[in-house]
Amino acid sequence: MQRVLTEIRIAGFGGQGVILAAAVIGKAAAIFEGGYATMTQSFGPEARGGSSSAQVILSQEPILYPYVAQPDILVVMSQEAAARFTPQLKPGGILITEQELVRIDRYPAGVRVYGVPATRLAEEIGRKVVLNIVMTGFFGAVTGILSPESLRKAVADSVPPAMEKLNLAAFEKGYEYGSHLMVKLEANGNGNGAAELALESA
Amino acid sequence: MQRVLTEIRIAGFGGQGVILAAAVIGKAAAIFEGGYATMTQSFGPEARGGSSSAQVILSQEPILYPYVAQPDILVVMSQEAAARFTPQLKPGGILITEQELVRIDRYPAGVRVYGVPATRLAEEIGRKVVLNIVMTGFFGAVTGILSPESLRKAVADSVPPAMEKLNLAAFEKGYEYGSHLMVKLEANGNGNGAAELALESA
Repeated sequence: MQRVLTEIRIAGFGGQGVILAAAVIGKAAAIFEGGYATMTQSFGPEARGGSSSAQVILSQEPILYPYVAQPDILVVMSQEAAARFTPQLKPGGILITEQELVRIDRYPAGVRVYGVPATRLAEEIGRKVVLNIVMTGFFGAVTGILSPESLRKAVADSVPPAMEKLNLAAFEKGYEYGSHLMVKLEANGNGNGAAELALESA
Repeated sequence: MQRVLTEIRIAGFGGQGVILAAAVIGKAAAIFEGGYATMTQSFGPEARGGSSSAQVILSQEPILYPYVAQPDILVVMSQEAAARFTPQLKPGGILITEQELVRIDRYPAGVRVYGVPATRLAEEIGRKVVLNIVMTGFFGAVTGILSPESLRKAVADSVPPAMEKLNLAAFEKGYEYGSHLMVKLEANGNGNGAAELALESA
């Protein structure tokens, strides 16, 4: 991990596997990269509406306060989640969207935005239900804060043995999509291209 | 829920389904009983050793600080978890154990202790893997802080459709075992019988 403390929020519909995605990221950081992580899930009025949200904090030191106020990285898989949480994103932060489910009209200043058609990619490998792990692979490629190997181990460690192959395939699908996107942005001379796009559309 | 704030810790081995049990209790309280709940999982050095622990806070008001210092209720499914967390239990609290995996030698003063052979009960319905939901059913019966109906709905809401029947059977198994135990303790004229046992053995 590159920073002392990285705050992440993942949000979407219930049933999209938000919590598992958060747990995979937490495990990758803490168990496979030797850091610390907490994952907090709040159940409350918002959860009654069928939405789901988890907060993950990655740190190189024990974490004293596990709540995320302004995430550095926000991953959204539903329009409702995007509307609710995008305004909280830290300036200079990273916004990752399921691009066929989320349309972003206004970005906070300076945010880098990366979209992935995770549901479609999950369907391509036969199971829509692994869209969360496609998102996790994409997250790994565009943020670069955790090694893909740690993330792969955390995926394998977090799903039932019978589901491991499918989930690892989903991870690769998202990771490759993200890697190609980053190469393309770099080749266009804008490693920060998404940020500029965001500013342009703001 | 009977109290403004109830702090719960569930701990055991990795693979025992500690997190799912915690999520079921959180959902039952917040989604099906209209309260608030948070579930926090810490990944860190202890998780590297194959242990797993989750904290749940149930409240009638929004929760500002999701960390549990002294749980009111502690559920342990491994000896290591019992050794580590029992000293933190609140005086007057409730300790729930997987009685064939945990041997308690010293209890904090005044703690009520209830044991259930959850692994064996899970094996009786054919799948050891549902021991966490057997524990959840037992938790429901002995604590009485959530209605069994809310807990059943939360179980159904938290597992894949194909696993629903098995998990509901596991819940009933644990709930019935706990209900019979409470009736027996009551009949012996000691609704607080476990507490007295605890004191005697301390």
